[in-house]
Amino acid sequence: MTIQADKVVATIITIGDELLIGQTIDTNSAWMAQQLNAMGIWVHRRVAIGDVREAILDALEKEGAVSDIVLITGGLGPTADDITKPVLCEYFGGTLVRDEITYRQVMEFFESRGLPALKRNEDQALVPDVASVLHNTRGTAPGMWFERDGKIYVSMPGVPHEMKGLMIDHVLPRLQEYFQTPAVVHQTLLTSGMGESFVAERLTNFESALPSHIKLAYLPSYGLLKLRLTSSGPDKLSTAAALSIYFHQIKEILADITVYDQDLPMGEVLGTLLKEKGKTVATAESCTGGFIAHNITLIPGSSAWYKGSIVSYANEIKNSLLGVKQETLQANGAVSEAVVREMAHGALAQLKTDYIIAVSGIMGPDGGTPEKPVGTVWIAVGSAKELVTMKYHLRYDRLSNIQITATYAMNELRKLIV
Amino acid sequence: MTIQADKVVATIITIGDELLIGQTIDTNSAWMAQQLNAMGIWVHRRVAIGDVREAILDALEKEGAVSDIVLITGGLGPTADDITKPVLCEYFGGTLVRDEITYRQVMEFFESRGLPALKRNEDQALVPDVASVLHNTRGTAPGMWFERDGKIYVSMPGVPHEMKGLMIDHVLPRLQEYFQTPAVVHQTLLTSGMGESFVAERLTNFESALPSHIKLAYLPSYGLLKLRLTSSGPDKLSTAAALSIYFHQIKEILADITVYDQDLPMGEVLGTLLKEKGKTVATAESCTGGFIAHNITLIPGSSAWYKGSIVSYANEIKNSLLGVKQETLQANGAVSEAVVREMAHGALAQLKTDYIIAVSGIMGPDGGTPEKPVGTVWIAVGSAKELVTMKYHLRYDRLSNIQITATYAMNELRKLIV
Repeated sequence: MTIQADKVVATIITIGDELLIGQTIDTNSAWMAQQLNAMGIWVHRRVAIGDVREAILDALEKEGAVSDIVLITGGLGPTADDITKPVLCEYFGGTLVRDEITYRQVMEFFESRGLPALKRNEDQALVPDVASVLHNTRGTAPGMWFERDGKIYVSMPGVPHEMKGLMIDHVLPRLQEYFQTPAVVHQTLLTSGMGESFVAERLTNFESALPSHIKLAYLPSYGLLKLRLTSSGPDKLSTAAALSIYFHQIKEILADITVYDQDLPMGEVLGTLLKEKGKTVATAESCTGGFIAHNITLIPGSSAWYKGSIVSYANEIKNSLLGVKQETLQANGAVSEAVVREMAHGALAQLKTDYIIAVSGIMGPDGGTPEKPVGTVWIAVGSAKELVTMKYHLRYDRLSNIQITATYAMNELRKLIV
Repeated sequence: MTIQADKVVATIITIGDELLIGQTIDTNSAWMAQQLNAMGIWVHRRVAIGDVREAILDALEKEGAVSDIVLITGGLGPTADDITKPVLCEYFGGTLVRDEITYRQVMEFFESRGLPALKRNEDQALVPDVASVLHNTRGTAPGMWFERDGKIYVSMPGVPHEMKGLMIDHVLPRLQEYFQTPAVVHQTLLTSGMGESFVAERLTNFESALPSHIKLAYLPSYGLLKLRLTSSGPDKLSTAAALSIYFHQIKEILADITVYDQDLPMGEVLGTLLKEKGKTVATAESCTGGFIAHNITLIPGSSAWYKGSIVSYANEIKNSLLGVKQETLQANGAVSEAVVREMAHGALAQLKTDYIIAVSGIMGPDGGTPEKPVGTVWIAVGSAKELVTMKYHLRYDRLSNIQITATYAMNELRKLIV
């Protein structure tokens, strides 16, 4: 069956007490929403509930009433707190029967590890007979696809890589077949250096001239401001073409503060530029403690332009590995222009790259002084030929200070290279 | 007014299209849930909706019907896509009036930055006259506290550090005053090395003997399995005492796989141990690319026991900085026992710590070979006197492989020291 719809809307239900007591941060929903969005399905609600029968039944009823698609994750494990499957069976009215393919998978999974399969593992192969089974090649809990009154309900495990496997292998292709959705197109401009309200002021005329089917969103994100234009239409190509006219306008208006014209992490923006130029970079990190290196090495293929980092958390490492002089440390303190300069030069000598990023700061909550309060950060970026330094005063918590410093530092190097 | 209740339940509503298209991962809800939970308020629902009038009105109505407290974040910015405030004003029936304290704050905020305050910035000081204003010292959008039919509704900005400031300064103390809640106590045991179903099997008798007011949850998390016991009662002390009896039982049953008896990040577990022993550690990272260093330096005070990392992403850095021999690299490849051994010894010599962690692996999605498929990881941990190595085969995505490798590596060093 194929359903043609102007707007297909979905709810994502995540089940698990760990989400409600704050023990787990929900990253699944964001990924699922991205995938659905890319195929023109609009996630209009996300709901997190506990491992509680009544809460699950209630959510199935209420979300099914307002959505075409209800995607459910969590509560499919082999332990007693996992109750999603029996509750689904109760809701859709069926009996649990053994799925032979899943059963063989479970058996093989345990055999290959030299472990006995327990009764509770075998029970992973039980599925409601009213469901269509989605085979999980990355774990022992299968996905389940239910249909009722033209609505789709899919239950998947909450383990991220298992959920992703099921979505890619089964759920997304089936939904694509089932629904004829309008194309949704986003274009995002990354900017830096101007506050949200000033950007909005500059965009007043642009915004009021936007046609009603195009939406502009302001997304502040760790030292950056993202401007996202969204449009939908019958097909992707013409929708994208129509949107690009407005995207070019906004790029022109904000040219002086533009970082990049795609929503990429800053590490990837920098990497794209370095690859283009055939240049390499390394890092010397004190206060960011390896976070810049992590951001960069998270990008597959970054070894083409990134060589490594000296994380000189202790002053003695700044001295012994980066060659920062004891006198410089004593006279200026570790968080100073003189020290980040020597860190940068030392790292260039040791790591032999074209460019370098060096940072030293006080990320909090402790360690501040009246002269150098928490949030004081010195950054040096450049090459052996040209090194520029800058000082920031951040006023966030430790993790945010680290994240913003990393973004600023990579952006400063980008600006210097451009 | 003080309300005495057996169970106070809350909904967290997050507003913003960025949450529904997957552009932003919601970390606010987890933090808020932790805080509420600690004071005995049970978050039974979390709902994310878009910047849409009808969706906001509908959520206020439905969540207010089932919860005592509705906490709302997002949609309070100065731009046109932020509509939460007028919609709240419509729902609770009031007029927007200027709050003088907020107005002065906004003016000072812009003055101190040498920027003009725009009309849209001044409008941040407008609040519904039926709300009690919660002053935001970290930004320009104030929080708003509404009461209706004995239920509490609080609206806060979505910027994490602003929301946290408002929660700590105003919302949590006020809720504490308003509700007399039962004490909720959690105790979490970290384990490693045994699958969820086998642990559950071993805990069958323990679990069936648990009184009904104590709940056991299984939380797999990046190479660890967390076992969480939860209980509630009239006061914290007696509830904790009663729970600790069962917690001691579970610790005894799982002694052989126990990592730690608190829910701490692995870096902090390792750090606690090192501080106790007065020892130091450093890292030599290839495939984890600084992620172990980041995990450790995220912990305030880690400089007492952590000196730094050499992130040798390129083989030439393994050779030049860590002294890994060219012959070793050529004969064995970078992902090999011989190379992690030389990395470890080289880093000990350079960074001069008591202990070292060295890792080299293939995190994917590319770079695998038939002999060394994606997910192959070599870890070396120990000291100059005693170095142990181990090999893992991971089968997740790049980020998960990095996260699990970091956890395993730190846990292996912990086991060696213990």
